[in-house]
Parts: sequence; structure tokens; C-alpha cells
Amino acid sequence: MKSQLLGSSIIGFSRGAGTTVAGHAVHPASNARLEPPYLAATTEEVERAVELARQAFPAYSALPGAVRAGFLRAIAGEIEGMVDDIAERGTLETGLPDARMRGETGRTVGQLQLFASLIEEGSWVDARIEQAQPDRQPLPKPDIRSMLRPLGPVAVFCASNFPLAFSVAGGDTASALAAGCPVVVIAHASHPGLAEIVGAAVMRAALATRMPEGVFSLLYGGGRTVGASVVQHPAIQAVGFTGSRAGGIALMNLAANREQPIPVFAEMSSVNPVVILPGALERGEPALAEAFVGSLTLGSGQFCTNPGLIFLPEGKGLVFMDKLKSLVAAAAPGLMLNDSICRAYADGVETISGIEGVETVARSASPAGTGQGAPAVFSVSLRRFLEEDLLRGEMFGPAALIVRGSIDEIEAAIPELEGQLTGSIHGTDAELAEHAGLVSALEQKVGRLIFNGFPTGVEVCHSMVHGGPFPATSDGRSTSVGTMAIHRFVRPVSWQGFPDSCLPDELRDDNPLGIRRTVDGEVR
Amino acid sequence: MKSQLLGSSIIGFSRGAGTTVAGHAVHPASNARLEPPYLAATTEEVERAVELARQAFPAYSALPGAVRAGFLRAIAGEIEGMVDDIAERGTLETGLPDARMRGETGRTVGQLQLFASLIEEGSWVDARIEQAQPDRQPLPKPDIRSMLRPLGPVAVFCASNFPLAFSVAGGDTASALAAGCPVVVIAHASHPGLAEIVGAAVMRAALATRMPEGVFSLLYGGGRTVGASVVQHPAIQAVGFTGSRAGGIALMNLAANREQPIPVFAEMSSVNPVVILPGALERGEPALAEAFVGSLTLGSGQFCTNPGLIFLPEGKGLVFMDKLKSLVAAAAPGLMLNDSICRAYADGVETISGIEGVETVARSASPAGTGQGAPAVFSVSLRRFLEEDLLRGEMFGPAALIVRGSIDEIEAAIPELEGQLTGSIHGTDAELAEHAGLVSALEQKVGRLIFNGFPTGVEVCHSMVHGGPFPATSDGRSTSVGTMAIHRFVRPVSWQGFPDSCLPDELRDDNPLGIRRTVDGEVR
Repeated sequence: MKSQLLGSSIIGFSRGAGTTVAGHAVHPASNARLEPPYLAATTEEVERAVELARQAFPAYSALPGAVRAGFLRAIAGEIEGMVDDIAERGTLETGLPDARMRGETGRTVGQLQLFASLIEEGSWVDARIEQAQPDRQPLPKPDIRSMLRPLGPVAVFCASNFPLAFSVAGGDTASALAAGCPVVVIAHASHPGLAEIVGAAVMRAALATRMPEGVFSLLYGGGRTVGASVVQHPAIQAVGFTGSRAGGIALMNLAANREQPIPVFAEMSSVNPVVILPGALERGEPALAEAFVGSLTLGSGQFCTNPGLIFLPEGKGLVFMDKLKSLVAAAAPGLMLNDSICRAYADGVETISGIEGVETVARSASPAGTGQGAPAVFSVSLRRFLEEDLLRGEMFGPAALIVRGSIDEIEAAIPELEGQLTGSIHGTDAELAEHAGLVSALEQKVGRLIFNGFPTGVEVCHSMVHGGPFPATSDGRSTSVGTMAIHRFVRPVSWQGFPDSCLPDELRDDNPLGIRRTVDGEVR
Repeated sequence: MKSQLLGSSIIGFSRGAGTTVAGHAVHPASNARLEPPYLAATTEEVERAVELARQAFPAYSALPGAVRAGFLRAIAGEIEGMVDDIAERGTLETGLPDARMRGETGRTVGQLQLFASLIEEGSWVDARIEQAQPDRQPLPKPDIRSMLRPLGPVAVFCASNFPLAFSVAGGDTASALAAGCPVVVIAHASHPGLAEIVGAAVMRAALATRMPEGVFSLLYGGGRTVGASVVQHPAIQAVGFTGSRAGGIALMNLAANREQPIPVFAEMSSVNPVVILPGALERGEPALAEAFVGSLTLGSGQFCTNPGLIFLPEGKGLVFMDKLKSLVAAAAPGLMLNDSICRAYADGVETISGIEGVETVARSASPAGTGQGAPAVFSVSLRRFLEEDLLRGEMFGPAALIVRGSIDEIEAAIPELEGQLTGSIHGTDAELAEHAGLVSALEQKVGRLIFNGFPTGVEVCHSMVHGGPFPATSDGRSTSVGTMAIHRFVRPVSWQGFPDSCLPDELRDDNPLGIRRTVDGEVR
């Protein structure tokens, strides 16, 4: 490895000097401890990181988009340069394979570059200009101009299941930095070394592009105290989180009970219902089963978009079920990200299999080794599914529940589901048109509707919605993937009666940035 | 009056039959009770109103924007037709003058028409299309399209201080209905008759334009139980509120503690700081004092944008102060909206005048009659202002506090303020440029920056931000005035891999609505 891991927090442009060990990384396949020990940020270090972020905000948020874009591109470059270290340390810490580490590095770099492009172009600020009408009756109309401005320092929590794309320099950090918000990252205990490699890359990029100190810090902490202190700090103005429902709800409560409540964007829990209509079975049951099991077992099922719930028309799909059984039996158990996820998954599978009316359809024929989760598929009647709340919760890992009922029953069951990231429908175009009520019911529950596809694979683009009604996310009006994610960290501000020379460039008469704007209601 | 007031709730297309009297309207000038008594909605009626809204949602949200616009225009027409009744009953219930009632009716009608135009044109949905790239390496790119979709039924609380523009068919209702959300309105106890006149107009418009029953209901309730039941109902997906800080925070807590937390858009408390720089005084102190006292006493100071806090450079503005004294002394006490606002104002003035270091600059020379509030202006040093929290709270009514300090001290004091709807600066262009740090500090605290103007007068347009960091609003990322207000009640939804024929019109290949869209990152 090129990187020398120090095991300490990054506080602005210096390193933490905490003395209490927060923990070591652990290799999930062997439970072996990985060096170095990671030291928890002290109370003073937490205070200093947030205070630096507060001080950095006016200067950082005043930088032109093109300059902030330069910082994001520099981060991307620094991370790309560390890909071998990332792969080496990342496979040890997460149990994810080398190809995934490299692929996720590419995704992370791509996200940073996409946000850089967005803010270089600049029209995302939704500049609106209403010109004065001094002679209007009964009252003159003042000159009023608005644009989106950053909220202030943002706390970002790293996710265990996307150690790069939703961690130190992942989607939350990239969108917050793009918006103009300094970021204080709280590392995940599962991959502290990976966090340090990426955090050091961000710090180098900030120095190289002369960003104000405090635009970025990375804090380690044992337990939840460091994260809670950051969220409760008055200077923090928003929170980004990807993780468990319990963790997200704890943050929502902390944020709601501050003297100044702040928004929390927590991406939490989703079982991602998939409705299979008869036409999809007629098109080829084995291929459908293959696609499903592929999506289910991808990354050991540790995606927020894992398809955990399949609605299958009663009395149909025998070949689909047979194929699924053989595929799941043949599917090898996969390493889980850490011991607690591994145990929660085993408990979840154990619980569901013991519920009255639940049948085990298939399980991996191979026993699960240390730190592994074995694929499993269960089935239950629609009636029982609606009766038993436990059946509607998430099993984080490669497990799914098949629910059988008539199509009318399935449509009637959709409103009983909680909010979801995604909802998928498989069938023919004619069936999709025929079951408009089902599509409408599903739309009300999800952020992304998918036709003839499975939900894993979340494209990073302008039209992606990776969000959904609670508990999929804490705020169903948001997405954490794609360029719309930047809207989480901004608010509109109006300037009334300002002279042209004192307006932000985005709002000046001569439009020096050449961005798209709405002038007196007309887009120009 | 053309209207016959029944004193009962409007539940979809029928009238409530509650039997418990919630209260009577009271004429604030005489404390005389106005007939009829208003009956509280029963538990069953609340349930039925929300359930009707839930059932109406799929049909209403699926209507083309142009059809929903027809509904909004029909409401506007019905309200316009009732303007004489509104003025007659409104002046009795609120104590506001006839011209204000007619003016506010015009504003309300204008708001409905503005939202109608917005959804007729249709581009507000931010349609985004990313076309499939089946040959992309390493993975094909799916077709993904997104647009903004309504959240679901919305609870709207009427405001006492805008009995039309922020009540039954005011900005919250107009923007929610425009977005595609059914609305359940909770009437304000101060103007129940006005609410009934407007509510009946909305019901007639819904019938005339064949809207689904439940798109609108209006509930009366004594105390807070009816409102609380609506907010806690699982079918309600968002809340709009304009009122007191205590009321808004109570709703935020109710919403946060639901099984599914929902967003609350509460516009609450603001003292609207005004910074006066020397150049503004040099331009003419008497005129500045006149403009200030005009803004302060407008509508008996009962605007959320009332200028309650003036920062004045130490040792300057003697003529301004003299002129202000004579203007305030000559200003007649004005009727307040209701007895509780009147008493709270008197208490607030009493409290502030008793605080150590506070001087009374001027008070109306006329004693306040029944239900009236007398204009008053106080002053205090910047040091005391920062020491004493009570001095930074809102006095809802025609009172202001002048704080004197050096310009550097004023700039340093801005970060100590709470979030505000507005922040104003008076001075020369050169001073504005020179004090960029002050403008930046103010920007962080407010939704709208004003130069050489006072904050009352909130233009309804595309660039208006009537919002601001907590406690100005519960969610500083929102505005409750202007077309951006529609964004409170929507969320983005993606469609992945859908056949063209099953997509919403906004997202179809041939763009049948002719709206502006982002296609593969390019605006077309």
C-alpha cells in the first residue's frame, strides 16, 4: 500500500490526536483484527471540526461553481490514484471482492465528476428574475430575484454497504460539497482504513485547490457519541445518512429535538416489492428466475434495492419456482459486511422461517461459513402476509419472501405496504396498461417504478430517484443518488431591490455565467 | 349577505352535522358575538373528510394540469363573486377594514390564477428523460424518466392574520391543489364565517368542475383536537400552517411522532431585522422614518414581515429618531385580529419595556380602546440586546426595538439572531458593496434580502421566497408565497423501462404537452 494508515481523525488540514481507541477494522472472513487501531475524536476535536466547517462556510459557499467543481474533480483524481490501496484495504475490511472495490471506486469518481459538471454548467441553481415595474397599479412591483443557496455545514454518516459510493466521498458528500456546504464525515466502524485512505485523498485535494480549511473533516468515534455530538452541534444544518432504520430514526429524533431542528436525509429500509404478472411468466419462467436470483444474491444481498418481496399470481409460476429452487440451492453463501449484519441476517431468516404459514421455498445447499449469509427464499399466502407485520420488514441480505394471491388481491395489498425505494412490475405492455390501478397504487409507495427489471443497479444520472416515502427515507421528497440529490442541501433565497453590482453572478442582468434562468416567468 | 351561514363543517360534498358548539366569531372592536354558532366536526366527520381525501387522491392526482387549473380558476371565480359577503363578514370578524378585505380577496384570487397558469403550462414538474443505451459498457443503461408528483392529502391550517390569502383557499391550499393534493382545511376560530363563505365557494367550484369528492373539506373544531386528529391521520402526507411559534412547534412534534413522520411547513416567527447604514440617513432621515413607521403600523403590525428590529449606527440618526417619535405618537392604535393576539401584544410590550436597559422611544399618544394595539418603539444597546434572549423574540403587533451599535458590532450580532423571513439593509450602493460580510451574514439567517425597502408587501411571483431558517419556518428549504410554494407538496418519482404508452404525458417521447424537459442532460 502507498498509504500509511495513521488511525486518526482528519480535522480540517490537521490530524486528530485522540487517545481512546474506538476500535479496529475486522476482516469478516476470519474475524482477524486489522491494524492500526482507530482513535476516537475527542470532544474538542469534534468541536474544532464543526467550528472549522462553520468558519469555512461563507468563503466556500461564495466560490463560483466552477471553482468548487475543480475541488470535486481534484477529489476524484486523488481517489482514482488510490484505487490499488482502496482495493487492497477494502477487500480486507468489507469482504467485498476486488472487482467490486474497483467498480465502486469508479462509481464514486463518476459521481464526483457528474456533480462537478452540474455546478460548472450552473443552471441547477434555478435562477429566477422578476424585473421591477415601478408604474404598476395599485402598487409598484419591486425587482426580486431568487436562486438556490447552500444550507450550511452538513454531517455525513458513512454507509457500511457502500464503503465508497456512500461513504467519505460518496453521494452525500459530493452533493453537499457541490451545493456549497462544508462536510463533516463520521466514519463507519466497519471500514475505517478505507475511510482514512479516501479522507486523506479529500484533504490533499482541498489543499491542492486551496479550499478553506474546514471544508472537510473526517471523524472516528466509538459507539454513537461522536455522531450524536456532530448532529446536535448548532452549526450543523443538515444530515445525510444511509443505514439501518433504527439508526436513521435515532438521527431524526436527535435532529428534531435540537433547539433549531434540521433536516435529516436518511436512506433506511426497503423491501422493494416486485409484482410478477402472468405475461412475464409466459415469456419464460427460467430466465425470470435467473434474473431474480441474480439480483437477490448480488453483493450478498446487501443493497438497499435488494428485491425482498415478490408477488406472484396464485397457481402460476411452477417452473419459475422450480428454477428458483435449484438456483438458490446452488447459490453459495456470501461474505457479509460485518459481524453484526451477519448476525442480524441470520436472526431475520430464523424469525421468518418460524412464522406460522411461512414455507421455506429454497435455501443454499452449502452451509454458511464464518461471516457468511446463505441465500434463502420463503413463501406465504397473501392473507397471512397482511396479518403479520413481521413479514413486511426488511431482511438485509440475500433473502426474499414470495407472496401469492390473485392480481386483484395483490393490487389491494400494495397500499398496506410501507414506503419503498422501488417497486417493480414484470409483464407485457398490455398488462401494464390494463393494471393502471396497480401501477398507481405502487407509485404512491415508491420513489422508482421499474418495468421488466429488478431494482438493483441504481443509475447515477439526472432522472434517478433513490428515495421514497418513509421508512425508505426519512424525507420522501428527496433522492440520495443522481443530480437531484443536490437539492437536499440548498434553500431558495430572494434578493429584492439589490443593485446589479451587488447581486450574485447568477442573478446579474447580463448573465455573465450564461446559465438558463426564468425571467418574468419565461425561461431564457 | 348572499351567503346563508350554516355554522357547520364541509365534508366533501356534504355538510357536517356535529352538535357540539366549537365557538362563535367575535367582533374584536366590541367583543360582540356573531351568529351563527360554529359546530365542531365530530370524530366520524374528521375521519370521513380525511378518508374522502385519501380516496380522491389517485383520481385527482392523475388529472391533467390543465383540468386541475380549471378547478383553481373556478374557485377564483366563485370567490370573486362573493367579495361583498367577504368584506361584510370579514370586517366584522377580523376588525380589518373593508379595503383590506377586498384587497386580500384580490390577492387570493390572483394566487389561485397564478398557480392555475403554472400547471396549465406544465413545465414545473421538472421532467427529466435519460434514454436507454443498450450497448453501454460494462452495463447497459436503462431508460429512466422522472417528474415531480404530489405527496397525497394535505392538512392546511388557516391563519388569523391573513383570513383569505393564508386561509381556506389561500396560498397553502392553492399550491397543494395545484400540485395534485386533496386538501383538508382546519378553520381558524377567529374568522369561521369567512371560512364558511370561502369553503362553500370551493365546494361549488369542485362540483361545477366535477372534481372527485374529497378533493376539499373544511373542518371546524374547538380547541386543538380536530387539527391534531387530522395531522395524526395516517392518510395525511403533509401539513401547511401559518401562525404562532408555539402552534407550529406543536404541529412539528405531532408530525415527527407519527408512525410515518410527515413534513410540516409552518411559517411561524420572525422579527425581520433592518440594518440602517449611514448613507441611508444622509439621503433623508424624515422620509426613512416615515417609510419605517408606515411598514410598522400597516395592518396594526400583524404581518409576519413586520419590521420589529432596527439596527441603527451608534450616535447617528437623531433626526430619524425625532421624526419617528412624532410619527409613532401620532399613530392611532389599531384593532387587533382577536382578543388573544391583543392581550399577547400588550403583554409583550409590557415585558420589553420592563427589561433593564430598554428605553421607550415612542408610544402612540392615544390610549388603546377595546381590542386595540398601540404602536410603540423601544431602544436598547447592542450589548444588552445580545445578553437578553427576551429582546430577540417577536412582539406580534405594531412594536419595534431599535438596537444601536457600531457597524462592525452590528455585523457581529447578525449570527446571534434566529432564522428570519427577511433581512433588510438601507444604505448606498457603495455601502452595500463595502459591507459584503454583513450581507453574507444576513443571507445565512433569512429567506429574503431587501435593499432600501421595508419587508411588508410580499409579492406573489416566481422569485418570491417567503420562508427562512427555523424558527421563521419549520423547514427553511421552503417558501409559502409564490410559485415555488408548490414544491412543498411534491416529490420526484422515476419510471424505469416503461413503454411510452404507459408513461405520464409529461414523460412521453413525443412530449404531447409541449413542456420544457431535460433530455439526456440537455434542456429542450
